[in-house]
Formats: sequence, C-alpha cells, structure tokens
Amino acid sequence: MKHIPLAAALFALPFTAFAKEVPPKTLQTPGEIVAASQPEEWIAISPDDLLVMDIAPDAKGKSRRVIIQLMPAPFSQGWVGNIRKLAAAHWWDGTAIVRVQDNYVVQWGDPDGEDLVKAKKLPEGLVKVPESDYVAKLKQESYVAAGHVEYSRDPEITPLVQENKFLESDPYSRSMVGFILGWPVGSGPYGDEEAWPIHCYGMVGVGRNSSPDTGTGAELYTVIGHAPRQLDRNIALVGRVISGIEHITTLPRGTETLGFYKTAEERVMILSIRLASTLPADQQPRFEYLSTSSDSFAHYANKRANRKDDFYIQPAGGVDICNVPVPIREQKPSE
Amino acid sequence: MKHIPLAAALFALPFTAFAKEVPPKTLQTPGEIVAASQPEEWIAISPDDLLVMDIAPDAKGKSRRVIIQLMPAPFSQGWVGNIRKLAAAHWWDGTAIVRVQDNYVVQWGDPDGEDLVKAKKLPEGLVKVPESDYVAKLKQESYVAAGHVEYSRDPEITPLVQENKFLESDPYSRSMVGFILGWPVGSGPYGDEEAWPIHCYGMVGVGRNSSPDTGTGAELYTVIGHAPRQLDRNIALVGRVISGIEHITTLPRGTETLGFYKTAEERVMILSIRLASTLPADQQPRFEYLSTSSDSFAHYANKRANRKDDFYIQPAGGVDICNVPVPIREQKPSE
Repeated sequence: MKHIPLAAALFALPFTAFAKEVPPKTLQTPGEIVAASQPEEWIAISPDDLLVMDIAPDAKGKSRRVIIQLMPAPFSQGWVGNIRKLAAAHWWDGTAIVRVQDNYVVQWGDPDGEDLVKAKKLPEGLVKVPESDYVAKLKQESYVAAGHVEYSRDPEITPLVQENKFLESDPYSRSMVGFILGWPVGSGPYGDEEAWPIHCYGMVGVGRNSSPDTGTGAELYTVIGHAPRQLDRNIALVGRVISGIEHITTLPRGTETLGFYKTAEERVMILSIRLASTLPADQQPRFEYLSTSSDSFAHYANKRANRKDDFYIQPAGGVDICNVPVPIREQKPSE
Repeated sequence: MKHIPLAAALFALPFTAFAKEVPPKTLQTPGEIVAASQPEEWIAISPDDLLVMDIAPDAKGKSRRVIIQLMPAPFSQGWVGNIRKLAAAHWWDGTAIVRVQDNYVVQWGDPDGEDLVKAKKLPEGLVKVPESDYVAKLKQESYVAAGHVEYSRDPEITPLVQENKFLESDPYSRSMVGFILGWPVGSGPYGDEEAWPIHCYGMVGVGRNSSPDTGTGAELYTVIGHAPRQLDRNIALVGRVISGIEHITTLPRGTETLGFYKTAEERVMILSIRLASTLPADQQPRFEYLSTSSDSFAHYANKRANRKDDFYIQPAGGVDICNVPVPIREQKPSE
C-alpha cells in the first residue's frame, strides 16, 4: 500500500470542494450543507470511546449529563488508557469540579489531589506517559488497523491545497493544520509525519504539575473560551465534549486565583463517570461525526471560510481551525 | 507631520520586544509583565466611553453589573453615537437578554423588536449607518485629534516586523492584524489605510437583519466563545465587555433556534444601561488599559506567543490576535 505523506493527508480533504462539484446554491449555510449530507458520510462513535459524566443536579433539581468522546490512536493513548482504568474503577465518583475560569477552562478531579495525606488513592496500573507523547508519530499501519484510511486520498489534489492558503496560514504551528480521523490537528512542515491535537473550544485535556510531570488523566479540564493554543504540545489532549457542554460552561466562575472555587460548597460534585460501553446497552449514548474526509465536510469547511448570502456581504476568505467544529450528532434510534 | 503607513502603525509596537530590551528573566508570565508595567503605560478610559449595564439580580439576589467600553474614532462611530442616545433616553431599561447561544453570543434588546405593533419606539435622532462603515478609513489627523498618536512610532523597526510572521499569518484577512488605540483590528494588504475591528471574545456588536440593514445599536450582542471572525466586516463592532462578563457567560443557554429563550420567563431583565459619565461622579467606574504601543504591551504579546518556563516546554512560536487580550484594570482610587 502506498505511503501518503501526512501533509497530503491533512489537507487533501477539506479542499476537495475546490476540485469537485460545488454544492447546490440552495445550500447557503454550513448547517444546510451538514443537513444535506449522506448517511454514509457519517462515522459512528464506539460506546467504548465515550465517557458519560453525571454531575450533581442544578438548583432546580434537573440532572446534568456531559458526554466526552475520547481521542483515537495514535493520539494520547497512554493517558486515554489511564482514563479508561479510572472510569472502570469508578474513581471519579464523589470527586468534583473545582475550577471554572472564564474564557479558559473548567477543571475537575480530586479536590485534595495536592494533599499528600488526604489525596484519593489512584487505581493500580496507571502508566506514566512521557512528554514526547504530546506529539504523535503517524504511521499508516495504525490507521489501517483502526479501520481508518481517510487520509490516504488522491494525492493529485494536493496542489490545490498549496494554492489555497486558508488553513496553511495558521499563526501557531508555523506549518499546517487540518483534520485527521475527525480531529483538529497541527503538524510540522510539509512532509513531516508528526501531528498533535489542538486546543479548540470543548477539547478535554489532562491537568498536570510542572514539567516533567505529564499528569495521569485523573485531573481533567475542558476549554470554555477562545482556543488557548499555547497549551498545544504542552499538555495531553484526550478528547472533546460532544454533548451537555452547557452544563459546565454556565457554572459560576471561581473567585480564587486561576478560577478555583474558594470554598468546598461552591464545588460541583461528580456523581459518576463511566465508559458508555459499561452501561446497559439501551442506555448507551449513540453519536456519530461527519467524516472529515467526506465531500460534505469539505463543502462545510469551505462555507465556514467563504460565506456570502443575504446576511454575509463580505466572505471571510479564510477560517481558523477552531472555527470549523467537526459536526457531531446523536444517531437516530432507527439506525 | 509625516504620514506613517498603517501597516507600520499596526505592527510597529508589539514587536519592539525583538528590537529593544528583553524583560528581566524573572518576568516569566504575561501576567507578571503586566504587573511590572509602568503607570505611564496605562491609558485612562473616559467615563464617557463606558456603558454601565445592570441586569436583574441572580437567583440569590446578588446584583449583576456589566461594564462595556465603547470603541473610539474612527471605528463604528455612527452606531456608537446611536448607543449614546439610546442610553441617554434610558431606552434599554426594562428590555431583556433574549438569546444565549453556547460558544457564540449573548444578545439583548427589545424582545418585541420584530413585532411591528408591539415594538418599543426608538428615540429620535438615531442615524442610519451605511455598510461601508464596517471598515474605517484611517487618517492620521483623527488620532492626533483624539490625543492618540501611538501608531506613529519609529518606522525603522518595521523590517523586524516583516521578519517575524506571527501576527502576519492570520488565516482570515489574507493580510495583517494588530492593535490600534488599544483594539484588535484587521487591515488590508501592507500599506493599506483601511482597518476593521475583530470579533474576539467579549467584543460587543450590533444585531441586525439581512443586508442592507446595518442595525441601529438598540440590539447588541457579546461574543462568549471562540472568535466568530466570519462576522468581521459584516456587522458593526462597537465595544467590549471589560468587567462583569461572568454575569452573562454563565446565563442558561436558550433552547430555541440560535439560542433564543423559548419563554418570556427565561429572559433576564435589563434594569438599566447608562453612560458612566451620567452617573454621580463618585459612582463612575474608572478603568484603564495598557497602551498597545507601550513596551510592556510588546513584551506581553511576545510572551503570549513564546512562553517557555517550568510549565511550558514547547513555546507556541506564534499567537492569534484574539489570544492577546488587551490588559484592562480598575484604576486605584488614589489615582
């Protein structure tokens, strides 16, 4: 099987819009393009890749559930493995959301995690992941093994990518950004085979202490503001919130340094975090994402960058990677 | 007086860090650099440029005040003028926050604004602003008149700017971004004399209907998520929230299309919006911002782009304009 350079992989897809058929004129908005996509362009998310987090009910007694999709190989798998073990051990049950900093992050874990005496004991078998794993080495075999070959598309469209600047002009990585396996990633110079996930809104990462600590995965956070991309390659990203983010973005901001809650009373208790696959089959949430190698995704990304209609008089002529959220939806029960 | 091209103006300042003295090594974080800045690097915000918005108290009866800084000339002054008239007429009192869409905007105004019969009558004297005013023509005289000459700095440092790519590689404007008079702006190609404000987190804009409507300023919104820069040059930006944003970012998300509240009960009443200069002198809020032409701002922006310390092992090597929020603080009473 031919080995396709990463750069072609990253960029081949969003740009097919320039090479192939243009969507019908009636599809004016990104949302309309997504709605008109074909069922086969969607990829089911395995319940084994979903974390179900139930936090204490709100002031009116309404339940609050947040669902997180874990990152696939080859990204951050050491930490993701730890997270599966923590969920299996029910380790998070009774821990809490301890920090909410406006335009930055919501963070949860053991409130006594820094207290050597009171800290909750971690389950056996967690691995210590090296800093080098903040960046993934891409090997074609790993995608084939996972049933994903979406980056190995027709390399003939690469020149079009190079002509179009919109995702190449990322101000952060001095290189390129794009989508692999449904996730926003950055990569090194053209032809490089390294890639790393990007801190967009809703992404979930692993809290840690100063380097060389890399965190276990027991302490997690979600981005709730403008993408803090200075954290890319400095912290492990392990997933993203795909449902219920409003339950945590609306929490009161903490008034201590860095948005930590000042008192124990302000914290929001975590009732449980479970891997969806361990729930009874009829209670497992079912989600799917729009393949980032599909034509509809290419049209959608293009429309995010170049919108012109009754409302938009001046197309942006570009877009940043975090302003192209990957469409994710609940699967219909019939499917 | 020599006429300095805009491009030099935009970029001259944040980059003095590369040309001039480096901050002491002990200033490791952007926050430390701001804290160590000199008093004369801060510019007081006139109470005539501050809107004070009081919304209904929260569930615990705690008051909620949001303070908005209005944009200076030459940006969006037609709408800003309307907003001053609306505040003087107490027009917003009794209107409401009607929309909260996660990762997008909070919007307020007359809930019956679209109802020809029930809509609240607007005050006399509002002007209809043309779409061309989404972009400002820059004239040196306007800055001098306003007491601002911060963009006319030594053009010799421009070459350094051109060598450094971080703010030139903006994915949106196909050109350049920077700061003018303390605000994030985009501009056309090098040497162009047009500029427009950018939709960063916390920026306040003017709701409107389809083009060619440009809105009056009676309906306003604030960005509460990742910068929706497709709106740049398509909507008037008139200011930014500088205090109390947490009172609106934590509001429940609306469940109607576009995050509108489904019922009148969900809306949050606006008690009053006043220009700060119309309040009794001892009740006027006093804020100041770090001059975007100061050395400390340059150091700060540089640190946002290139952080390396006990925590950050991999400097980003760049930053996007909306990830360099302009430092703003309350003035000490003694000042």
